[in-house]
Amino acid sequence: MAASEPVSGYTVADHLVDRLAELGVDRVFGVPGDYSLAMLDHVTHHPRVRWTGCTNELNAGYAADGYGRLRGIAALCTTFGVGELSAINAIAGSYAEHVPVVHVVGAPALTAQEQRRPVHHTLGDGLFGHFTAMHADITCARASLTPENAVAEIDRVLRAVRDQRLPGYLVVPADVGTAPAERAGAPLPPRADTTDPEALEGFVDAARRLVGSASSPDDVAVLAGLLVHRLGAADTLARVLAAGPLPHATTPWAKSLVDESAPRFAGTYTGAASPPTTRATIEDAAVLVVAGVQFTDLDSGMFTQHITRSRTIDIGARSVTVGAATFAPVELPTALAALETLVAEVAARRSGPAPTPPPTASGTDADAAPDDEALGQTTLWREVGAFLQSGDIVLADQGTSFYGMAPHRLPAGVTFVGQPLWASIGYTLPALLGTCAALPGQRGVLLIGDGAAQMTATELATVLRERLPAVIVVVDNDGYTVERAIHGPDEPYNDITPWDWPLLVKALGGGDHVAAARVTTVGALRAALADASAHPRRVTLVQAVVPRGDVPELLAALTRVLGARPEPAS
Amino acid sequence: MAASEPVSGYTVADHLVDRLAELGVDRVFGVPGDYSLAMLDHVTHHPRVRWTGCTNELNAGYAADGYGRLRGIAALCTTFGVGELSAINAIAGSYAEHVPVVHVVGAPALTAQEQRRPVHHTLGDGLFGHFTAMHADITCARASLTPENAVAEIDRVLRAVRDQRLPGYLVVPADVGTAPAERAGAPLPPRADTTDPEALEGFVDAARRLVGSASSPDDVAVLAGLLVHRLGAADTLARVLAAGPLPHATTPWAKSLVDESAPRFAGTYTGAASPPTTRATIEDAAVLVVAGVQFTDLDSGMFTQHITRSRTIDIGARSVTVGAATFAPVELPTALAALETLVAEVAARRSGPAPTPPPTASGTDADAAPDDEALGQTTLWREVGAFLQSGDIVLADQGTSFYGMAPHRLPAGVTFVGQPLWASIGYTLPALLGTCAALPGQRGVLLIGDGAAQMTATELATVLRERLPAVIVVVDNDGYTVERAIHGPDEPYNDITPWDWPLLVKALGGGDHVAAARVTTVGALRAALADASAHPRRVTLVQAVVPRGDVPELLAALTRVLGARPEPAS
Repeated sequence: MAASEPVSGYTVADHLVDRLAELGVDRVFGVPGDYSLAMLDHVTHHPRVRWTGCTNELNAGYAADGYGRLRGIAALCTTFGVGELSAINAIAGSYAEHVPVVHVVGAPALTAQEQRRPVHHTLGDGLFGHFTAMHADITCARASLTPENAVAEIDRVLRAVRDQRLPGYLVVPADVGTAPAERAGAPLPPRADTTDPEALEGFVDAARRLVGSASSPDDVAVLAGLLVHRLGAADTLARVLAAGPLPHATTPWAKSLVDESAPRFAGTYTGAASPPTTRATIEDAAVLVVAGVQFTDLDSGMFTQHITRSRTIDIGARSVTVGAATFAPVELPTALAALETLVAEVAARRSGPAPTPPPTASGTDADAAPDDEALGQTTLWREVGAFLQSGDIVLADQGTSFYGMAPHRLPAGVTFVGQPLWASIGYTLPALLGTCAALPGQRGVLLIGDGAAQMTATELATVLRERLPAVIVVVDNDGYTVERAIHGPDEPYNDITPWDWPLLVKALGGGDHVAAARVTTVGALRAALADASAHPRRVTLVQAVVPRGDVPELLAALTRVLGARPEPAS
Repeated sequence: MAASEPVSGYTVADHLVDRLAELGVDRVFGVPGDYSLAMLDHVTHHPRVRWTGCTNELNAGYAADGYGRLRGIAALCTTFGVGELSAINAIAGSYAEHVPVVHVVGAPALTAQEQRRPVHHTLGDGLFGHFTAMHADITCARASLTPENAVAEIDRVLRAVRDQRLPGYLVVPADVGTAPAERAGAPLPPRADTTDPEALEGFVDAARRLVGSASSPDDVAVLAGLLVHRLGAADTLARVLAAGPLPHATTPWAKSLVDESAPRFAGTYTGAASPPTTRATIEDAAVLVVAGVQFTDLDSGMFTQHITRSRTIDIGARSVTVGAATFAPVELPTALAALETLVAEVAARRSGPAPTPPPTASGTDADAAPDDEALGQTTLWREVGAFLQSGDIVLADQGTSFYGMAPHRLPAGVTFVGQPLWASIGYTLPALLGTCAALPGQRGVLLIGDGAAQMTATELATVLRERLPAVIVVVDNDGYTVERAIHGPDEPYNDITPWDWPLLVKALGGGDHVAAARVTTVGALRAALADASAHPRRVTLVQAVVPRGDVPELLAALTRVLGARPEPAS
């Protein structure tokens, strides 16, 4: 237990919090512990940073991940051993999904560490490096601070997190956080572009030959992926697409990277599980630009993507491949910027106006079902799709919610958050807290299954306490439906306990700013959503009851693809 | 996603579950995942093993830990990456606190692993060993199964877990769990005693000289610790104590190891924070036997134990020290058994009957406070102490609950569970599930602070679903009181959202078998507890409101000890 006194003068903790604020962090998520309490004083007393306590560390880690996705950096603070290990699944998820989160761990004082004391929150063996070692594969930089190295190590780790868009890990012993430090004289140096000019020139030459072979920009399609977002190149991509305009799609992982209401948006590409028009746009393109795409099982229709290398420009994070030739180091934003010029050259050859494809299905047919129809997966996602509006942050948990929403065309200005690689169910509920904190004033719309929501439900209390404008749809289908679709539809391991969600929000602190309803029909869902729209500053929870075995069409398609393959992906 | 078909014939999963059953496991705790579903069929269809699904993996890990403490072995099953990492804090706790838990992880099929597929629940890099590496320091044995090694590796890991009383880790790829296996021809060989006869003889000689120097058994005191319980030597210890009878105490970590209603029980020893009589019994003994004690900060009054080596026999797990001489390998149960003979020799010299010390304070003065008195920490623990009865399993979370109950003398036959080394708050709520499953029919009594309970509250749903006979006291003191006592009593990081706990149990599935009340006075608490006693098969939840800054006397004493020391323990 650290009995540190409040410290006057500038400390290591002050340097850390000031640097976080400099990088854009205005919230630190976490759970306090006795090893971190003194350091937290420097958070709660900071003029530009707020402490947001969560109910547990995994949830705090998820919240930080959500914040980091939308702000480009996030901070999580936990205590040694018990706290950091509770959050480690969230950190691994941030690593897998390229989210920059600084995990700050309050540790036993160096005096205790030097004496190898078997203090609480340790394995009792007098060793203090076990948990740092456990972070080796899931963070891009790590440091254990001492009074001597603290300032330099904080700066090194924060730069790595910012530049690599991956989590970092800082161990702050209780007596180091409160140790005196020098105030930094200058902000951190900006990230440097590592692109090699000759590699870039080679890429541009090769890309010009390939793009130039297209008879019109309509023959050049773009498939854009997650890394475009993570590397801050969404605006550059938008300019490339507009320069054509080029037909384009994204993978589910990159959903909302582009304006899905644009006429040339061809949908969400998931290999053999894609709609036919989306599939044709990508797979039959004379020239295909693949930008920032990392094909994973759930993001590629179980690896059924069909990309012909000879006519493809594949832009990775730090290298570009044109046909069979690879150019490196070329950074993705730089490569995309170069491509804009090439596309403009081809567009200049356009003979007539760009074609306007027929509008694809979207939420506009929401009124098709009568009010008294029992709710099902199809009607649920159609109604939710019609309910969304520009500015919304939509979080779809990796289950029927993700598969239900992924194919829906979103209105312009909607931000979509999912987690299809790490796929940790329950993630989105605490992430709602983080994303809404990252973009204050924007409405959060959480779509989550009951089984997933039960994993992290305690964080509803924090959502209520923070009075976030949010609409929460809990899909009540009596268990782990996505798993029933895969194996054991009637096995007891896919059952869960039924909960009364409207009562739950009351128990967790609901007040006048909260509305909650259980709905079983299309009409009741419509009424609940309309009520939410009429009260935009409220937290609205809708427990949407759908049949237990019902699955969204995309999930059914994925299951069919899986069944058609000679061996399972996993 | 594993689309495995049900397998007829004997499989690797069958061998695993049969071996677990052979070792005494009749429940597997966990959360299903697509990589583990097929394996789980072999759990749910096993004649002697039940699946107990939890709301999340950390809670399932805590439940397994609770079960393992009382049954000597437990099993936890999670899915790759997301599941196992969510549970890793529980496994680390099991390691720190010497609890045998087999953690079985359903992993992507070997076919996917061999192709280095970036499948979901991985870091997307085609590597599958990251999470095994993260378990290296917190498990005593690990294996990644293949069809060829599965039977041998399962047996090796299970024997290590059983024999070392530490967690083990088994990765079962989806296509290995369902692979054919040969049915074992014989049970696992029993654990072998590694004691060296010469070392044992040397120990006995040295111990006889020291014990023989005592003029009476009353001059030989015993301080017993956790490892006596973990190594299955509680009965042997009881015989040693009875052979005197010897005055004795336990550390808080070992609470309920001995019958606390015995006349020679001198209380709970916590160094300088001990009651004076307890301290004198241990520190002033002419000869002291320390058995299975590992002094940690919270178990020793912040390392203020005062043990004089020259007159001490210190029995560790695999070595014994008498004065300055160490004898090894000598296993603790063997050393204790040898001690019984020596104690009997001294007892034969006793001239009169053993003294009967005056009874120490216990729950018997519970009626002291009038019914209308506002509840406080002192009255709360006194009333709870008076309420306990033989057969109860008492779980006290590491906060005011632990410090409030630790000094209370328990009735005979009460089992006490706490976690003072790993000290992960919230642990005891899911552990209630595990301990009650381990000892069916015995009443669970959970004592937990509101901040701790919020961390793991979703598992109340499983407690309700399983209809466990349980009494749950949630200490509502408006935040993290144990942390307020250490630092930042009025800082926002020690605040939590107030919850309505009786409403919560309703929302999580409460029915006729559930009663819940919020109490603010001694009389209301008495009434709620009396009602619980009158309905022993019910789940009773009591939200006990106490003043925010009130702390139990032992916690105050520890804080005083901490303040009196030149440097903090951490």
